[in-house]
Amino acid sequence: MRDFPGSPGTMTGLILRILQFVFAAVSIASMASTAYFFKFTAFCYLIASLGLQITWSFVLALIDAYALVKNRALKNSLLISLFVVGDWITATLTLAAASSSSGVAILYFNDLNICGFIGECQKYQLSVAFAFLSWITVATSSLIMVWLLASG
Amino acid sequence: MRDFPGSPGTMTGLILRILQFVFAAVSIASMASTAYFFKFTAFCYLIASLGLQITWSFVLALIDAYALVKNRALKNSLLISLFVVGDWITATLTLAAASSSSGVAILYFNDLNICGFIGECQKYQLSVAFAFLSWITVATSSLIMVWLLASG
Repeated sequence: MRDFPGSPGTMTGLILRILQFVFAAVSIASMASTAYFFKFTAFCYLIASLGLQITWSFVLALIDAYALVKNRALKNSLLISLFVVGDWITATLTLAAASSSSGVAILYFNDLNICGFIGECQKYQLSVAFAFLSWITVATSSLIMVWLLASG
Repeated sequence: MRDFPGSPGTMTGLILRILQFVFAAVSIASMASTAYFFKFTAFCYLIASLGLQITWSFVLALIDAYALVKNRALKNSLLISLFVVGDWITATLTLAAASSSSGVAILYFNDLNICGFIGECQKYQLSVAFAFLSWITVATSSLIMVWLLASG
């Protein structure tokens, strides 16, 4: 297994994990700070899904940091397979959550044009935008993992 | 490259492509038969995205059928790479479309409980369900393609 930028135990890998964590945290914070998010199934699902995403990214960031500090390579095929499966599951859930929430946010903001009435649309939009950013970073990690496993 | 069930040029591969095509077609037909789908951005995106999905699955089904009739194996690495990229792009778009539409459909059916007023909710739900079925079959194809490429 060669060392790609972004593979586990490298500095770029750690930065990717931290970005995933931060984007997901901003998304959850923005959504949770609204008064009526619990009335929308899609927004509750976003929080649940990004909660899982945060946990996963946090654990992987810890593993990356440990490997960096101890200067140990993480090139075990079994470990990488586990990362691939976890990354794909969280990436799929995050994309589904971001998309369903964006469907609802666009409905209120564009289609019905009743955002003044709801009053919290900016926060919904911010949350959806950060959820998509989080998905992009997880998808990048997943692709790197698959590539690493395939080339190993 | 070994012969997995579902790899291009096999009968199971052809069946998977036909299923993708049929599920996406039913989803589009169900959505397009409603009177007000064009008022919802999410539903228009569903039709556009599944339109791409149908085209992709149809072309791949033709290639599979040709390979089966001519009894020729499709084991070119470059061709499989192209299938992998295409499958992942269409799978991502289909999942995003199905999720955003399901967000809106659940909003009307569950959260707001105004489906009687809209009157076309069953068709929206049917369309979303078939979009998800289509996504499951494309995701299966994508995984088989990645596996095939990785093991080749």
